[in-house]
Amino acid sequence: MSTANLNGAGAQFVRNAWYAAAWSDELVAGQPLGCTMLQEPVVLYRRTDGVPVALEDRCVHRSLPLSLGRVRGDVIECGYHGLQYDCAGACVRIPGQQTIPAAARVRTYPVIEQDCVIWVWMGNASKADAAKIMSFPWMTKLGWQQTKLHAHIECNYQLIIDNLLDLSHLAFVHATTVGSIELADDALVHTERSDDGVWTSRWTLNVPPAKTYAQFGRYDCNVDRWQVSDFRAPCTFVIRNGSAKAGTGAYEGGRGEQPWEFIVCHGITPETDRTTNYFWAVTHDFGADDPVGTAEFHRQSHQVIGEDIAVFTAQQRMLNLKPDAPLINIRYDGGPIQARRLIDRLIAAEHGESVPATDDAYVAA
Amino acid sequence: MSTANLNGAGAQFVRNAWYAAAWSDELVAGQPLGCTMLQEPVVLYRRTDGVPVALEDRCVHRSLPLSLGRVRGDVIECGYHGLQYDCAGACVRIPGQQTIPAAARVRTYPVIEQDCVIWVWMGNASKADAAKIMSFPWMTKLGWQQTKLHAHIECNYQLIIDNLLDLSHLAFVHATTVGSIELADDALVHTERSDDGVWTSRWTLNVPPAKTYAQFGRYDCNVDRWQVSDFRAPCTFVIRNGSAKAGTGAYEGGRGEQPWEFIVCHGITPETDRTTNYFWAVTHDFGADDPVGTAEFHRQSHQVIGEDIAVFTAQQRMLNLKPDAPLINIRYDGGPIQARRLIDRLIAAEHGESVPATDDAYVAA
Amino acid sequence: MSTANLNGAGAQFVRNAWYAAAWSDELVAGQPLGCTMLQEPVVLYRRTDGVPVALEDRCVHRSLPLSLGRVRGDVIECGYHGLQYDCAGACVRIPGQQTIPAAARVRTYPVIEQDCVIWVWMGNASKADAAKIMSFPWMTKLGWQQTKLHAHIECNYQLIIDNLLDLSHLAFVHATTVGSIELADDALVHTERSDDGVWTSRWTLNVPPAKTYAQFGRYDCNVDRWQVSDFRAPCTFVIRNGSAKAGTGAYEGGRGEQPWEFIVCHGITPETDRTTNYFWAVTHDFGADDPVGTAEFHRQSHQVIGEDIAVFTAQQRMLNLKPDAPLINIRYDGGPIQARRLIDRLIAAEHGESVPATDDAYVAA
Repeated sequence: MSTANLNGAGAQFVRNAWYAAAWSDELVAGQPLGCTMLQEPVVLYRRTDGVPVALEDRCVHRSLPLSLGRVRGDVIECGYHGLQYDCAGACVRIPGQQTIPAAARVRTYPVIEQDCVIWVWMGNASKADAAKIMSFPWMTKLGWQQTKLHAHIECNYQLIIDNLLDLSHLAFVHATTVGSIELADDALVHTERSDDGVWTSRWTLNVPPAKTYAQFGRYDCNVDRWQVSDFRAPCTFVIRNGSAKAGTGAYEGGRGEQPWEFIVCHGITPETDRTTNYFWAVTHDFGADDPVGTAEFHRQSHQVIGEDIAVFTAQQRMLNLKPDAPLINIRYDGGPIQARRLIDRLIAAEHGESVPATDDAYVAA
Repeated sequence: MSTANLNGAGAQFVRNAWYAAAWSDELVAGQPLGCTMLQEPVVLYRRTDGVPVALEDRCVHRSLPLSLGRVRGDVIECGYHGLQYDCAGACVRIPGQQTIPAAARVRTYPVIEQDCVIWVWMGNASKADAAKIMSFPWMTKLGWQQTKLHAHIECNYQLIIDNLLDLSHLAFVHATTVGSIELADDALVHTERSDDGVWTSRWTLNVPPAKTYAQFGRYDCNVDRWQVSDFRAPCTFVIRNGSAKAGTGAYEGGRGEQPWEFIVCHGITPETDRTTNYFWAVTHDFGADDPVGTAEFHRQSHQVIGEDIAVFTAQQRMLNLKPDAPLINIRYDGGPIQARRLIDRLIAAEHGESVPATDDAYVAA
Repeated sequence: MSTANLNGAGAQFVRNAWYAAAWSDELVAGQPLGCTMLQEPVVLYRRTDGVPVALEDRCVHRSLPLSLGRVRGDVIECGYHGLQYDCAGACVRIPGQQTIPAAARVRTYPVIEQDCVIWVWMGNASKADAAKIMSFPWMTKLGWQQTKLHAHIECNYQLIIDNLLDLSHLAFVHATTVGSIELADDALVHTERSDDGVWTSRWTLNVPPAKTYAQFGRYDCNVDRWQVSDFRAPCTFVIRNGSAKAGTGAYEGGRGEQPWEFIVCHGITPETDRTTNYFWAVTHDFGADDPVGTAEFHRQSHQVIGEDIAVFTAQQRMLNLKPDAPLINIRYDGGPIQARRLIDRLIAAEHGESVPATDDAYVAA
């Protein structure tokens, strides 16, 4: 991790990756949807069979975004002079003329709809592999409920990744709901890295349940609590959050007694180097019999994400003001540092550069 | 046309030209009016005899805009320390001192009020020729009505010129009022250029009238329709829009049967390279006996200009995001391309450069 | 005064100086207060004994402003991961680890609370001398009242200093309250400079009282009026404003008959080179028996400062548009020019440069 990178300067992104472009229900039949991903304008629309298409969102004639145009069957028509593009990005109609120049085409992006997410591959299409999409099965699983958000955030995407790989912050940012001081003081943290991700588990054992846990897990005793962040580079997460009665075997690998868990799915999509589209869903299989309680659990969850967003935007404003200010790392930064290293390596690999295996800037305190 | 120019980058303007600074009724006696034209601050005010004056809108003492001051007879007084400037831009009073330094003067601009427009010459005053102002006689003609707009638009001015020289866009941008698909598919287009302008006619013959035409032209049959754009470089237009019963001789040069026409006057005044003040007036001699119908015609006209403005601002946002993206030209771009070439030549001539007569970038598809 | 400096370009500030950071009542016990001074983020908070503390407002870990955290006794805790800093800027707690790296500290600033102002020294702490704080005794003096403002203004701070050292502007900017034309036309102006300030007196003798003076001074005759600006570089002012019956000895150094006076205290704190926090208080010892009249005097005072702010922001917009436009000086600019010279000298001295004693750019007309 270079300091420049940590500070969000420089618009470098991993391009050969699947990014969340929209929740499925944001892409309505017959209505184009424009978004900016990795500083590229992208338009999404559904073919008549419902399959999503992702094209460059810029008519090659006079640069009007195609997302201001109209879906006509399987093609999209520019709203200015009526040029039409098919799903392969080829211009197939220019009103008033018969010939269509070969240059009249827009870029097309591989796109897959899976787990209620429209995933777009922003890099070399020949390398797009559907198997690399992180799986969010709880979005559609029988008996599971979800509450979700699509937020446009004024921050560099890496600030969000940092956040999700150091969940000690719950003790301070979310002290009135899911946080308790033991998450910061007494956690057993274990981090592993792989070629394409970072995995961090945090256990706090025999601790009083935080407010949300006590309320919805209905504990009248101490708990063993887990937070397991599974980061798939560059921009997706599954985080398991749960607890069981203290000392009943959860930490040792069992179910434990009175287990209570929710799973959060995250898609973090850079828009520019200072703005990000954030897709977030809390999923759970409890509460089917308690709509009022579930509504309150969802409200608390949205309070939590709102508190995080306030942190991200304040950090970014400070980074804008003091882009070169030095930072220090702490013990819990192992996960965030591994993630930044991994992203740096992936970006360098796309540019044919090598990155040293170790870097003093990464050395935690 | 260079791509850089097409994309709105670079703040080069034709300076030796008359630009619309305000509608006459925007300049009220006794009240200074500040505006920015070609990135220059300009203040307008009326002398006691009503004649408009245009000066640099910046007190040479401490840079307060004079437009925040007061008109006192024929002079304008700075609202900060009371320096007064006469109509020739000379400082004629500095409170508290007798001597006035020779440098205490602001630039003055040639100004002419004509056809309800305050026209300001932004270049070399010795070249200002009132005869070069485009005539908008319908603004004041007996029996004619007008509806008008002064809009501040977040776009480069050339995007507006492009729009007005390719009226095929009505088929898509204004499909619910003045547009119909034949305007794009079946138009007979003829373009001529002169030393100071571009003239484009579009005829669509024997076509169903568009909604607005059917409603106010009261046609129960097909029509022959004309759209004639008369562009006077760098920034004024008169566009005639009308129709007559199909096959009754209008295309051949006659009046035709049941002719119906309105004439639109346009002043397009660059503020910066990304913002423009747009003066637009629809004029017509029908409807004097039908105030309710006229109000609806005016409403539809304002809907149309609002739709255009949405296109301009979306184009500009895309050009900001992708300033170097390549563009292609289509058959209908003859008029817009001639206009951009002409503006390029005029700018180059002011800078003593030559521009090649042909430029591959202009070659339409 | 270089033109660049006059135009507000270049972010150079005098650092070895006390700046107003907040009014005392803006800094509430237990609540951190963030501000930006001289482009540095600063957080203020009160210790348990009420004494104010000023630290760098940026956690060294992940750059969250500490002002979004919590005051815990005498320390401040980051709202993200709970790092705590003591009043000396040392990190004294990192949750989850025992060792604290030596680099984990934030800058601390000398701070003094005096005359209802929190003063912060932005330069070399070893040079901070409480005796250099300009005294505003009327903020707390028995029998005196105050009305005050803290405004965030979109202008370079020097525009405000210019304003306060040439009070001829009252004739034009504040013509409906404290201004009258004689302030500009017939003033006796005397300017003196010292090593750390500029002092300007303006007397207008035997003149009709301006509206505010007539109303609250209850004059039925002409007055001798004084305006005495005492500028302590770089950013504080005390301005005495008053009058007495004409010809009753005030100008000669006596009290005069029916004297009426108010004293305005100013703290002008650069935030960036284009934004300023302005602390302004009008103080007076009249009107204790007339709350309704005093409320109206305060209303007129706030009208006056609002008119000034409109001037500052309009000047700055013009300087942004035309940063290199030449300016001229007038006779009354002696005070403002001395102040700009003094600030330039102080800045240069901090950078080890010398500034010529005279500079053609300063020569007034």
